[in-house]
This record gives sequence, structure tokens and C-alpha cells, in this order.
Amino acid sequence: MPKIVDHAERRREVLDATWRVIARTGLDSATTRAIAEEAGYSIGVLTHYFSDKQDILVSAHRLAFARARDRILAATRETTGIAALRLALLEALPLDAERFVEAQVDVSFLGQSVGNAHLRGIRSATYEGSRRLWRSFLDQADAGGELGPDADLALLVDDVVCLVDSLSIQAIVDPDHMTADHQVVLVDRFLARVSAGGAPAPAR
Amino acid sequence: MPKIVDHAERRREVLDATWRVIARTGLDSATTRAIAEEAGYSIGVLTHYFSDKQDILVSAHRLAFARARDRILAATRETTGIAALRLALLEALPLDAERFVEAQVDVSFLGQSVGNAHLRGIRSATYEGSRRLWRSFLDQADAGGELGPDADLALLVDDVVCLVDSLSIQAIVDPDHMTADHQVVLVDRFLARVSAGGAPAPAR
Repeated sequence: MPKIVDHAERRREVLDATWRVIARTGLDSATTRAIAEEAGYSIGVLTHYFSDKQDILVSAHRLAFARARDRILAATRETTGIAALRLALLEALPLDAERFVEAQVDVSFLGQSVGNAHLRGIRSATYEGSRRLWRSFLDQADAGGELGPDADLALLVDDVVCLVDSLSIQAIVDPDHMTADHQVVLVDRFLARVSAGGAPAPAR
Repeated sequence: MPKIVDHAERRREVLDATWRVIARTGLDSATTRAIAEEAGYSIGVLTHYFSDKQDILVSAHRLAFARARDRILAATRETTGIAALRLALLEALPLDAERFVEAQVDVSFLGQSVGNAHLRGIRSATYEGSRRLWRSFLDQADAGGELGPDADLALLVDDVVCLVDSLSIQAIVDPDHMTADHQVVLVDRFLARVSAGGAPAPAR
């Protein structure tokens, strides 16, 4: 009887193995060989999933954003508006070891995309998706009267993207300055500024 | 008579050639061979200036920040406070082709530094220097009564660094969204927010 391979399941196993290798050894060491070994497959099988090193980077990038998005949606299920935005920001930022790896993957991806139009296109689409997600929280906050009357939602989305990008980068490159505590200070300062009353965002 | 080599002058020639190669062909193509050809020296001579590819990246990084700093100091010679901060921000951001190359060098450097403690240390020192420079403008603005009474200067410095980092990255990776015009909108919005009266920063 021929063996039935569940491709979706195997792909998931390969991506999980990819993430474990990146988290343990860094992106540079995440070769097809290392991922195959971690997943328990031959390199031959891996070629069905990754054609080259750039493919691994693209998969890791998508995986990092999917993981962050899943966490954000789970964390904000019972909350809306500014309170949800705060929880979402705390999930997006590299405040623990796991999310630090996600930020490392993104900063590597950004660096590689400088001279690579294909990667720039992929990252640009990720930016678009991120802006939609942040906008949904800002729309809720606006509908709930939590923002100032003159709030420009499109520009506030840019502010959120800038905050997440720059705090993540500094946390990696300049960790003595941009500690986890300092990231939370800057998040709460941002939320206080955009909130209608200027009050600190509610903790949960 | 032995030829007298002016090492400082030759180093300057080599760095100028390095910058021209990066601007023309991108950082990935800026090899020792290409730089030697551009400068009109042998590869042997170049080894006195660069030991390897990483050395070229470090030199390019320092050169990019030195160029931006020189422009900022020149542009703000006759101005102080918020007006000077505005001119400085416009010099720091990738609003034209020349400064776009500086931003590309920095984003490449950030990406490479993820897995490289030596590069992280160098970039961390650059952050420290940048913070001092931005702080000097904020101190002037504060002394001139241009900031709100409760302005936290240290946190405002972080805001400026975040703005420059994130706008530069998005301008490279997502240029359709983060156009030069949009960067200026976000700069003026930031300046209006930190100014005591909330008024737009004076144009010059």
C-alpha cells in the first residue's frame, strides 16, 4: 500500500523545525541540512519546501509574522480599542526570548532586502498587512471615542508601525539602551499621547 | 628619492572611491577589487585599508554617518532649537538619491549586525553619538522655551531616533508608501506635537 503523505502536515513540521533551528543557532546557520536534520527528513525531502537559502529566509519571515499575528489575535479576543492596541503592541515587540527571535528574523530580512527587489516586495506586502491589523484596533478606539477628535487614523497607523520597527531594531542592536522595560515605557507614553484624555492606557 | 605617501590623503581617496562604488552598484558589489579599480590602486594597496568585506561595511557605515553629521552641522549653523531640529531631520532622512544610499548602507549594516556582536557594538556606539546630536537640538529648543513644560528630553531623543530609523527603513523597503513627501509630513507632524504651542515648525 503506498504511503500517504499529508503535505500540509509535513510542511508544518518542516516550518516548526525551521523555527527551532533559527531560535537555537541563528538565521545564518539555518541551512537546508540543519533543518532537514532537525525535522528528521532527508535533504531531498526538504528541496520540496525550500529551493535555496533565500526561500528559507522568506519562510522564516512569513512564519514570524504569522506567529505574532496569532498571538495578537488571541491576546485581544476579549478586549477592544486602546486596551487591545496595548496588548497587541506588547505581543509584537521583542519583550521575551521567543519574540526576540522574531525580531531578529525581521531585521535580517530588512537588511537582505536592501539589494533584492523580490524580498522588498514581500516585506512591502507584510507592511500592508500589518497596517491593516493596527488600523483595526485604531478604528475600534475611534468608534469608542477613545481618540482625540482630530485623530488622523492613517497617520496614527504609521506611528504604530514606526514604533514597532524602531523599538525592535534597537532592542537587537542596542539592548543596553532599549531594554524590555524601556520598550514598555515608550509604548505607554505613545498610548497616553493618542488617547483622548491623555490618560495612561488601562493596564490589564 | 623615496615616494612620500600621505596616508590620510590616500585613505580619504579610498573611502571616496568606496562610497562611489556603493552608490553606483550597491553594497553587495562593493568588493575590494571594485574599490581598488575605482580608486586606481592595486588590490595590494587596498589591503592596508580593508582586511575583509566586513571592514568595508564598517567603513561605509562610519562614512555614511560622518557625511550625514557634516551636512546636519552645516545646515544648522545659523539656526537653533526646533527650526534646527527640522533642518537636521531633513538632512538625516533619505529624501534624495544621495541620502538614499546612506540609508541603504545603514539598513544593510543593521541586518548584518543581527548575528554579529562586533557590528552590534559599532552600531550601538553610533546610536549613542546620534542621541547626543539630537539631544543638542532638543536642549536648545528647551532653553528657548519651545518645548512643553513637562517635556522629557531623554524620551524625546528616543522619539527622534525612532522616527529617523523607521522612516529610513520604510523608504527603502516600502517606497510606494513612504515617499519623500510622506516622510516630510511625518516629520512636521512630530515637530508640531513636541512644540510648546503645538504649532507647525517654522519653514525656512
